[in-house]
Amino acid sequence: MAEELSFPTGLGTSDATTISLLGQDLAGDLMGQVGFGELAFWLVARRRPTRGETRVFEAVLVALADHGFTPTAIAARLTYLSAPEALQGALAAGLLGGGSRFLGVTEDCARFLSQALDDADKRDSYDEIALKAVRATRRVPGLGHPVHKVEDPRTPVLIRIAKEEGCYGPHLALFEAVGRVHPKKLPLNGAGVCGAALADLGLPVDLLRGFALLARAAGLLGHLAEERRHPIGMDVYLTVDRNAVYEP
Amino acid sequence: MAEELSFPTGLGTSDATTISLLGQDLAGDLMGQVGFGELAFWLVARRRPTRGETRVFEAVLVALADHGFTPTAIAARLTYLSAPEALQGALAAGLLGGGSRFLGVTEDCARFLSQALDDADKRDSYDEIALKAVRATRRVPGLGHPVHKVEDPRTPVLIRIAKEEGCYGPHLALFEAVGRVHPKKLPLNGAGVCGAALADLGLPVDLLRGFALLARAAGLLGHLAEERRHPIGMDVYLTVDRNAVYEP
Amino acid sequence: MAEELSFPTGLGTSDATTISLLGQDLAGDLMGQVGFGELAFWLVARRRPTRGETRVFEAVLVALADHGFTPTAIAARLTYLSAPEALQGALAAGLLGGGSRFLGVTEDCARFLSQALDDADKRDSYDEIALKAVRATRRVPGLGHPVHKVEDPRTPVLIRIAKEEGCYGPHLALFEAVGRVHPKKLPLNGAGVCGAALADLGLPVDLLRGFALLARAAGLLGHLAEERRHPIGMDVYLTVDRNAVYEP
Amino acid sequence: MAEELSFPTGLGTSDATTISLLGQDLAGDLMGQVGFGELAFWLVARRRPTRGETRVFEAVLVALADHGFTPTAIAARLTYLSAPEALQGALAAGLLGGGSRFLGVTEDCARFLSQALDDADKRDSYDEIALKAVRATRRVPGLGHPVHKVEDPRTPVLIRIAKEEGCYGPHLALFEAVGRVHPKKLPLNGAGVCGAALADLGLPVDLLRGFALLARAAGLLGHLAEERRHPIGMDVYLTVDRNAVYEP
Repeated sequence: MAEELSFPTGLGTSDATTISLLGQDLAGDLMGQVGFGELAFWLVARRRPTRGETRVFEAVLVALADHGFTPTAIAARLTYLSAPEALQGALAAGLLGGGSRFLGVTEDCARFLSQALDDADKRDSYDEIALKAVRATRRVPGLGHPVHKVEDPRTPVLIRIAKEEGCYGPHLALFEAVGRVHPKKLPLNGAGVCGAALADLGLPVDLLRGFALLARAAGLLGHLAEERRHPIGMDVYLTVDRNAVYEP
Repeated sequence: MAEELSFPTGLGTSDATTISLLGQDLAGDLMGQVGFGELAFWLVARRRPTRGETRVFEAVLVALADHGFTPTAIAARLTYLSAPEALQGALAAGLLGGGSRFLGVTEDCARFLSQALDDADKRDSYDEIALKAVRATRRVPGLGHPVHKVEDPRTPVLIRIAKEEGCYGPHLALFEAVGRVHPKKLPLNGAGVCGAALADLGLPVDLLRGFALLARAAGLLGHLAEERRHPIGMDVYLTVDRNAVYEP
Repeated sequence: MAEELSFPTGLGTSDATTISLLGQDLAGDLMGQVGFGELAFWLVARRRPTRGETRVFEAVLVALADHGFTPTAIAARLTYLSAPEALQGALAAGLLGGGSRFLGVTEDCARFLSQALDDADKRDSYDEIALKAVRATRRVPGLGHPVHKVEDPRTPVLIRIAKEEGCYGPHLALFEAVGRVHPKKLPLNGAGVCGAALADLGLPVDLLRGFALLARAAGLLGHLAEERRHPIGMDVYLTVDRNAVYEP
Repeated sequence: MAEELSFPTGLGTSDATTISLLGQDLAGDLMGQVGFGELAFWLVARRRPTRGETRVFEAVLVALADHGFTPTAIAARLTYLSAPEALQGALAAGLLGGGSRFLGVTEDCARFLSQALDDADKRDSYDEIALKAVRATRRVPGLGHPVHKVEDPRTPVLIRIAKEEGCYGPHLALFEAVGRVHPKKLPLNGAGVCGAALADLGLPVDLLRGFALLARAAGLLGHLAEERRHPIGMDVYLTVDRNAVYEP
């Protein structure tokens, strides 16, 4: 069976003498001239970020890279303990926990804000939009934090950086309004404010979890490097196994 | 059963008002001041890279981020096609191909060079060390490329950047010597030279695959963003399925 | 810090001379006396299935084990091509496609039927319940098939086996009623009828995807064994790569 | 570009009215007539096992299905805690630990025995072959167990079942000989004897890890079902996190 096949892509291509990426000459135009975070933004958004956008974007990645012994970090370390020859498996195991509960807030918060902005009466102030959105939902993603009960230290810093770089837009404004009008006076958490900032950078809401995963990939590598030098995986395993209690 | 438990880490910790990462105040000292690539280096190496080291390191990540429709990129897109609600699964599936054949060269090349340097007679020149190492092995990892048969365009650029930043060390020097003395006159490929450059930055050889995986994570996000906008996964699947031939 | 730790489990425990699983002596009571499918049912449901239940359950697993070159099978083969030294990664990559679109129907269909039964007026016939449920939904999971447009050959066989073994219950009855009353006269597909059969076995709806994954694990091993003997992964990759077209 | 494409497979194919698997009519010949373990064997070995072979094979799968709170089971539970909406990710994370250390013994033991048999002088007795093989290696895979220091209860049972079914062959015979001649008098562990039994069934040594993974998939589903009903993942996480100690 003969057919005309065509698989379009705007990413990488190569021939005998050149490698192109995003329509650029990889060696001549990108290596040494584009930062890694900048390239990650460009790969997803298909436009090169400005210097200010890059700073906000990298601040988000830095904010999300690691949170110590999260369930995903522990899962990665246990997988490395069991299969140290396949680093990719340990990293993948860690990323697979990047779902709704522990890494989803960034995307969920941005989706909540984005939806509220889409639905808003254009004459309403941010506080009015926020009040309506808060009343229409059971739980606002990105509000409140189990540890940082008064203020998440990442929140004011990211808002300041976004303002410094001219990247403070409607999502961050609405999120701040949500914090003001919400009856429970809960702090805006860092994962949520990261989502608002990424949405203000024009990144697609459906892929924001992807940036949280990229950030976490760096954090997980840090954990795996530490597990290699100073392992705790065996102790975690033995702590659980030795305290196992049979219950029919 | 009561026991004294202690899980040491040098990465992240937090309390009600602060988040620390690598002994720094995450919000005050890192966000907006440290680039993402710089942080990834720091997390693994446990030391902050200099500005020049960061430039070399990010050039490596940029060089390794994407190579178009690799098996891993196709696997990630097919997984996204099947389970679009779990982006983390598609990313993980792509990374799981980061093993010996398609992503292992970076680490394998660095290990080969590192071993040759460890074994070398200190009075030997790089060409002499290279000649002995080449003769003692069946195949040098990082030598030759199926497409870039004369020169991999990434190679001279990365060597130049390393020299510009004062990061050209024994691994790159030995790899260039290998290229000079090898009887087959094969080009030094980009993945190999990246491994040599990372080793010259003092990064642990056993974890170099991790940096290739981090770089590839950005490339895979680019593929998944493209698959969302302009999918090819279904066409790949149908191309295979419609041309399936039963052979007992 | 000292604490009382206790991790309860009803699965496996062991000491120097015995291994227990599910409260049984693994070596004395299970090995050689319990089939693998039977054990899988027992592990999830926490009760040993009868001989008839086991036959229905294994018929479902056999029905779902393989469907040729699915996206998940291709993803597993491409991952094996890239990292042949880590079979677990190739298997995991294949399973990661077991999400909403290609493997979710089994669970989704059971959930739809289960919900309709919960909501039903107890005086209604199955056809009446089916009609109300069909009218209340946009799309019934498990109805229709892209290839088996008239009848999925697995459907009548599984219904017959369930009846033979006394395991034909309300979920299968309602699913057949859905087929009768639905205006489009679409066939009941095999994945859907498997979901109905598993629900009639009393297995928890939220975990039915798990059985589809277990079945698929066996199919994926078949693909990986075939990829080892008679590879097609490289051809898939080259077919895509050689027909890549750059589109900005 | 037009090309002749052909992707051969001996597994599944289908058309509008039939589904074939392994050259059989899936609905007519396999469902309800072939057990799941039997099918898994057939998919990999490409021959239908006898009733006796199936019993030995399923005894192996039952023996390997679960070992309580292993690192892989804990990793799966932590991943389920973080991303409960993606069961496939939790299962995949658990399988990714199926590498060299915790699940590799089965395959490694079979490879050791297989190599020793290949290298053997045909006039040697099993004890003589065993003695040479033991002397030539640093560590015999499958010998010794951290908990079952005197005897692994699975070992005599699996050997008995293999003998009952006429499946006791050179690998099991040699493994028993290894146990007799080894100077340390270590017990033959269950994972190792499973590898020897699978090799005696004629299954390819390079894929034996795959059967350990399939068995473990069932065990992991049991853990995930238990985690859903009676979770311990959060307690594991909190135990680690609350006892984290910062060490620069």
